[in-house]
This record gives sequence, C-alpha cells and structure tokens, in this order.
Amino acid sequence: MSTTLSVIAPGLLGASVAQAARRYQAADRIKIWARRPETRLALQEVDWCDEVCARSIDAAIEADIIVVCTPVDRIVPLIREISPAIKPDATVTDVGSVKGEICRFAAAVLENGAQFVGSHPMAGSEKGGMENAEMDLFQNRPCFVTPIEETPLASVERIVSFWDRVGSRVVTMHPDKHDEIVARISHLPHLVASALCSLLARRDPTSHLYAGPGLRDTTRVAGGNPDLWLEILLENRDEVMRALAAYQDEIQGLHAALANRDAAQLRDMLQRGKGYRDQFRS
Amino acid sequence: MSTTLSVIAPGLLGASVAQAARRYQAADRIKIWARRPETRLALQEVDWCDEVCARSIDAAIEADIIVVCTPVDRIVPLIREISPAIKPDATVTDVGSVKGEICRFAAAVLENGAQFVGSHPMAGSEKGGMENAEMDLFQNRPCFVTPIEETPLASVERIVSFWDRVGSRVVTMHPDKHDEIVARISHLPHLVASALCSLLARRDPTSHLYAGPGLRDTTRVAGGNPDLWLEILLENRDEVMRALAAYQDEIQGLHAALANRDAAQLRDMLQRGKGYRDQFRS
Repeated sequence: MSTTLSVIAPGLLGASVAQAARRYQAADRIKIWARRPETRLALQEVDWCDEVCARSIDAAIEADIIVVCTPVDRIVPLIREISPAIKPDATVTDVGSVKGEICRFAAAVLENGAQFVGSHPMAGSEKGGMENAEMDLFQNRPCFVTPIEETPLASVERIVSFWDRVGSRVVTMHPDKHDEIVARISHLPHLVASALCSLLARRDPTSHLYAGPGLRDTTRVAGGNPDLWLEILLENRDEVMRALAAYQDEIQGLHAALANRDAAQLRDMLQRGKGYRDQFRS
Repeated sequence: MSTTLSVIAPGLLGASVAQAARRYQAADRIKIWARRPETRLALQEVDWCDEVCARSIDAAIEADIIVVCTPVDRIVPLIREISPAIKPDATVTDVGSVKGEICRFAAAVLENGAQFVGSHPMAGSEKGGMENAEMDLFQNRPCFVTPIEETPLASVERIVSFWDRVGSRVVTMHPDKHDEIVARISHLPHLVASALCSLLARRDPTSHLYAGPGLRDTTRVAGGNPDLWLEILLENRDEVMRALAAYQDEIQGLHAALANRDAAQLRDMLQRGKGYRDQFRS
C-alpha cells in the first residue's frame, strides 16, 4: 500500500521531515505546501518533493499522513483550513513544542474520521529555515508522540512508526504530561539562557569578546527566533510559570548558601547538578 | 637569552600550558612539578617536559616564568612554599578563575624582587585532567592578564607575550574588574546551569533520555568538578552574589511578564537576549 505524505510549511523542521521521509522511505509520495511563492519555486528543484501545492488545502488531498510544521499558534487554524480535503482515514500530526491545547482543539476540528496525534521531535536548532534542514535531523533524537484517551491505537502506531522510520527515539506520553515536562527540559532552559543574555546585554555588552566556550554553549539556545518562542511560552504559560518558580527557588538556594558561606550546601547543589549532567555522557 | 618555564601542577590547564609552550616555542626549557608520583612518572615520557621535579621548590630553581596551575585556594600557599627558590628576576603567574585576592596576596609573598602578574585563560573544559590537555587549548581564546598598580611594565609584558605566543587573545584588566566581569560571564553561567540540573535531578531525573540538544548545551558546564567550583565561588563570593541577584531580577521579570501575559515585554527580553547571543557568530 502506497503512502502519501503531506508536509505543511517547510521550515527547518518541515523540510527535514520531507528529506528524512524520502531518504528513509517513510513515504512513497511527498507533497508540500509552502506559503511563500519563492519557497514553492525552490521546491520544484529538490528531489524530496514530488508535488508542490499552491494552496494549503491542496496538500491535504490524497494524503495519508499530514505533518503540520507551522509555528504553534498557526497549527490548529491550519488544520481547520485544510480539514475539508483531509481523507477520513488520514492521520494528522504536527511538530509543535506545546501539546495540550493543540491536541484537544485539533481533535475537535477533524470531524470526518481522520485522526490527530500530536508529535514533538526534540530536534532543531537556533538556526531555522529550510536552508538549514537536514535529512538526519531526527536521527537518534527523542520524539514525543502524544495521543489522548480517545485516539485509536492504529493512528498512534502510524505516527510512532513514521518517526521511528526517520530515526527518532519515540517516547509516548499524554499531552498534558508532555507540557509539564517540556516546560522544565526545554522551555525553562530557553528562558534561563535568554535571561542570562539579557543581563549580559545590559551589563557587559561586549563580553562575547572575552568570554570562554562555557558561556557560548550555555547561551546557544537564546539565539532562537523570539517570535516563535513567544508563542511557545504563551501557549504553555502555566507550566512555564511553575517551572520558573521552581528554578527561582534553586537560584535562591544558591544565593543563600553563598551568603551563609555554607560550603556543604553549595557542594551538594553542584554535586547534584553534576550527577544529573553526567548522565548525558553515556 | 634562553627562557626556562616552570609549570606547577599539570592538570588540564597546566599540561596544556607546557604543551603549548613547547609547540609554539614560548620557552626553551620546561620544568614541571606534579604532586602525584604516578604523574611524575608519566611526565618522564613526554616531549613537552625537560625536567620533572620531585619537590615543588625544585621547580622554582632557575625558572624565568613560573605558571601555577593549582586550584584557586592552593595558589598563594604554593607560591609561598616555593618562594625561597624563585629568582629575583622571575615572573610568576597563575591560571586561576578569580584574581583580586590572589594578586594581592601573591604580590605580598614575593619579597626578593620577583613579580606576580595574574592570568586567567578563558579555556578549559568540564573534562579536567592531564589526559585532556591540548597544545592548542589557548588558540584564539581570550586570556585575562591582571596587573595591579605596582606591577612593573616589563613583568606585565613578559606574561602578555607568553600568552600571546601560545595563541591567546590577551585582555589586560585590573584584578577587581576581572572578578566583577568574570562573575557574570563565567561564574554565573556555571550556577545557572547547575541550578537547572539540580532542579531536573529532583523533578525529572531521567529526562536526559528525551531532552534535546538545547538542554545538553545549556547544561554542559554543570559537569565541572564541584570541588574546584566551590573554591572559585567562595573566593569570588561577593561578586558572584551580586551577579546572582541581578540574574534573579531578570528571571523575576520573565515570570512577571508571563503572569501578566505581557507579550511585548517578553518579546523585548527574548530579543535583547538574542541580540547579545548573535554577536558570538561573527
């Protein structure tokens, strides 16, 4: 049985999805819709796109798997827009960094039997755009797949096996649990880095000239697109606020330990942090 | 005129200093003292050490430049220990991450005319130890050189040209100014990363399994040696506390902006952070 994949919005993630699907044969036919005419023109020339669609709704026609790769605030409106053309046995997914509301609304938008199963590949870069896409972007990278209680198992399996095929290590989780955890492991780190850069911009604006590799790595994610991140943070606002509050407690603990010259407490925190970080090496 | 370099304590930095000095001919003769007998044995076999010293004081004999590479709390005691054997025309430096107190005390310890000029190469890694040393560790990396008002210009120039020779981009600065800036660009980033890891260790201990490359980079420095960092933080305690307090204000600002759904304020902070971070690319 032949599989048609439709990619909506080929930025860094969308174009990487199409390239990976071609390379690892996760689909037989690949259709892509891009908003900008110049992008559609460029897509005519690449070997990882079989059909360039001028209208988003055209991309939905005959598609078995639709991957919506727009910014998070555009995902549900886009699915609504293309829904009249989505096949009843199609499965729709996305690559958004927030899942709870998107999964609930997207499921409600699809009425003819087609299913939505949220995805969140933990891949990407502060450098966005189709020109930075890579067919191996998902290789060995985690990818959350977030069904809700009502999602049919067959739809979940279709999306899981798609990500599996392009090399991801799939983790299945409820959308709300995803949002709670990702607030701490992804959205919080972004704010932690942004806050550090914001402080340095005020106090040491030329310090990049004499900073070491540590600062460079610690702050890398702060180079991400502010508009995309703003939407992510607002979409996951409650969980991000909880994560920030918990983080403030940790920073306050460090400040208090220094104020009290409490070496044992300081060493404990540094040691606990190192214990967590050292797991990444294995 | 032939130059004898003495390296005290060949860990990651010390061994890299010796390797770089040999490679880039910053010294004609290289003497090294290591505390551990097995390290001294290993040094017999390398081509970047001409004389292995069994006692620290032996390393000072005939040395023109002495680079003390111990942890920060051991630098001044070590200089005191070897001072009877230091030549009156020798220049002593270090590689410690904190400079104010060390520079004042080290200058006071040297009585026979030998000079101390502090150094702080912004190089290194969370992976310490001689086995990770590299002759190119300092290439194109910033290195602070921190004379005080009384330091003779010739001594400053000797140390500046040494670091220059091994490839560093030298920045000269008063030790107190150094400590203030480095608290924000190095010590604060370490705590920011450690606090994040400490929180995740408590709340999401297995999250390294599904975290993306962003978290990996943001937290890299938290893998550093807690004992070394504890000494650095206590040594630069006042400046680190000020940096932490300023950082808490930034985090609080983000929290308030989210609480108020103040998109303009949030975008401003993200944009300011990105503006700072983007400078690293050029």
